[in-house]
Amino acid sequence: MSSELTNRRVTLSSRPKGVPKAEHFTVDECAVPELNDGELLIKTEYWSIDPAMRGWTNDAPNYMPPVELGTAMRSFAVGEVVASRNTDYAEGDIVSGMLGWQRYAVSDGANVERKFTNTDLPSSLALGILGLNGVTAYFGLLDICAPKDGETVVVSTAAGAVGSAVGQIAKLQGCRTVGITGNDEKVSLCTDSFGYDAAINYRTGDLGEALKQACPDGVDCYFDNTCGPISDTVMTQLAHGARITVCGTVSLTDWDPIPVGPRVHRQLMVARARMQGLLVFDYKDRFPEAIDQLAAWVREGKVAQNEHILEGAEAARGGIEMLYEGKNTGKLLVRAD
Amino acid sequence: MSSELTNRRVTLSSRPKGVPKAEHFTVDECAVPELNDGELLIKTEYWSIDPAMRGWTNDAPNYMPPVELGTAMRSFAVGEVVASRNTDYAEGDIVSGMLGWQRYAVSDGANVERKFTNTDLPSSLALGILGLNGVTAYFGLLDICAPKDGETVVVSTAAGAVGSAVGQIAKLQGCRTVGITGNDEKVSLCTDSFGYDAAINYRTGDLGEALKQACPDGVDCYFDNTCGPISDTVMTQLAHGARITVCGTVSLTDWDPIPVGPRVHRQLMVARARMQGLLVFDYKDRFPEAIDQLAAWVREGKVAQNEHILEGAEAARGGIEMLYEGKNTGKLLVRAD
Repeated sequence: MSSELTNRRVTLSSRPKGVPKAEHFTVDECAVPELNDGELLIKTEYWSIDPAMRGWTNDAPNYMPPVELGTAMRSFAVGEVVASRNTDYAEGDIVSGMLGWQRYAVSDGANVERKFTNTDLPSSLALGILGLNGVTAYFGLLDICAPKDGETVVVSTAAGAVGSAVGQIAKLQGCRTVGITGNDEKVSLCTDSFGYDAAINYRTGDLGEALKQACPDGVDCYFDNTCGPISDTVMTQLAHGARITVCGTVSLTDWDPIPVGPRVHRQLMVARARMQGLLVFDYKDRFPEAIDQLAAWVREGKVAQNEHILEGAEAARGGIEMLYEGKNTGKLLVRAD
Repeated sequence: MSSELTNRRVTLSSRPKGVPKAEHFTVDECAVPELNDGELLIKTEYWSIDPAMRGWTNDAPNYMPPVELGTAMRSFAVGEVVASRNTDYAEGDIVSGMLGWQRYAVSDGANVERKFTNTDLPSSLALGILGLNGVTAYFGLLDICAPKDGETVVVSTAAGAVGSAVGQIAKLQGCRTVGITGNDEKVSLCTDSFGYDAAINYRTGDLGEALKQACPDGVDCYFDNTCGPISDTVMTQLAHGARITVCGTVSLTDWDPIPVGPRVHRQLMVARARMQGLLVFDYKDRFPEAIDQLAAWVREGKVAQNEHILEGAEAARGGIEMLYEGKNTGKLLVRAD
């Protein structure tokens, strides 16, 4: 059956310097090959757009090798198994994994991250709150920051896919939550949808002053998704014994050479603070525990995912740039077409 | 009896910008006052010279208020109780504490840190390996870095009072120890006296290359006493799961405004590393445990303190500058006169 299907995909057609734009991607169509033994065919429903994808388009080894030109852009995606010659997967299974920006993904199972088992909930959640974004927030906050009841937790990119989950999980721990975000619409989203006690638009007014008002006892936990000037300001207001999760550096797109900024050493000493880098794949064995807890919270209405859905392959091409410009509201997804 | 005694002291006579030099201090003599009830009189034997003293001379609050002009320079010192109207202390006790650069210290007990109980060992050790330097090394290494058998531990100011203790304690944990220091004499001291597996003179040759050779599997633990370019280089060679103790910033004397340097965020993420500030007074309740363990190691010949002794008050005046220029070999002390 596969041979009669046409695959519609978005390929990386030239290598960007910095953030990839629509011009670096091309939409094409090609035949879906026959399945070999051990392979399965997945019809994708949603493609994910994540900050890490910028790094994958560059010609420098990162966590992963760069995406080859002319191939479907690497991305997380979720979809339904429509044919299987792999005994681990059956037709009808909903799976997520590194399936790429393409309508049909042939897989030998290696790039399938997991089956989506909470099928009473929308499959798009598998790419956000019930996927890597959710587990990143879950372990980055609970394992590294380890917030205690009554502490103040500050989150940058507070309305984003990871940040909004961090804020909501921190609230469930009894924390005062303060979100930093980039426009007034997202400020409202933070306080109205994600339960932040305070939210700050870092582009208007004095972030340092606004933080002081929002965090009168200093910052106990900082979930840092941005690095850069936002992070520099938060670091001046650490409470004694503060913990910082370094999760992302979205405000600085170029790390070669390493950008300079205010040294954090003295702030860490004065506050006896701890700063730790997170790569969520280190927690792979514990993903099911996190996802089941997050799914329970979703069902109870305690955490929610805002979604910003782009329609189809053509729209996907500008998606990474949109993410880096902060123009999305909520988890940025592409509905496969 | 006290009234007949003359106190010889080194007072802060003008406020330096940055590192205090001999010109900022004056030697004077004054009468020792009579003791009131609750007070004790200590005849100091050794005065300590420590990096933190630079901060105490500046007119900005640090961990402690600045030293007032015209008063004895604040410092740790050790000496013998020669008169006591305080029931906690008896004549003949050896005590250490914030007694200042002066021959006679009158104390109500508040600035006495502890009695030196390992009196089979020289009292000068109370200012180094059996004092704050030793406990700083002990907790900063064992509690924050938590090195495991076979791991590589890198130490900056490796021949200094704290660094040499870190190197020796790390060796006792079964670690490969690599010291970074500032001249060839200290390189020899590191390998010959302090048991480092390798020692590097950061002023000659390429520190990055030398580190690579000395740490072929990367740096598991870094005890950072310097900040600045040395730290920047070590941070490029972190092993997976590295731990960094931020103990001192001796290579950067001015923190207003905060100096800039390469941002550490990405290195922390890629290595999933942890960087934590240390202030040893947070461990005050556990000092006796550390000092008794260190004293046992000293008696067994497993750890040693190199001492660099300046003779008397006049020599003390240039001591802090000497320390910041790295011209001392071992713990820098003044013998009181």
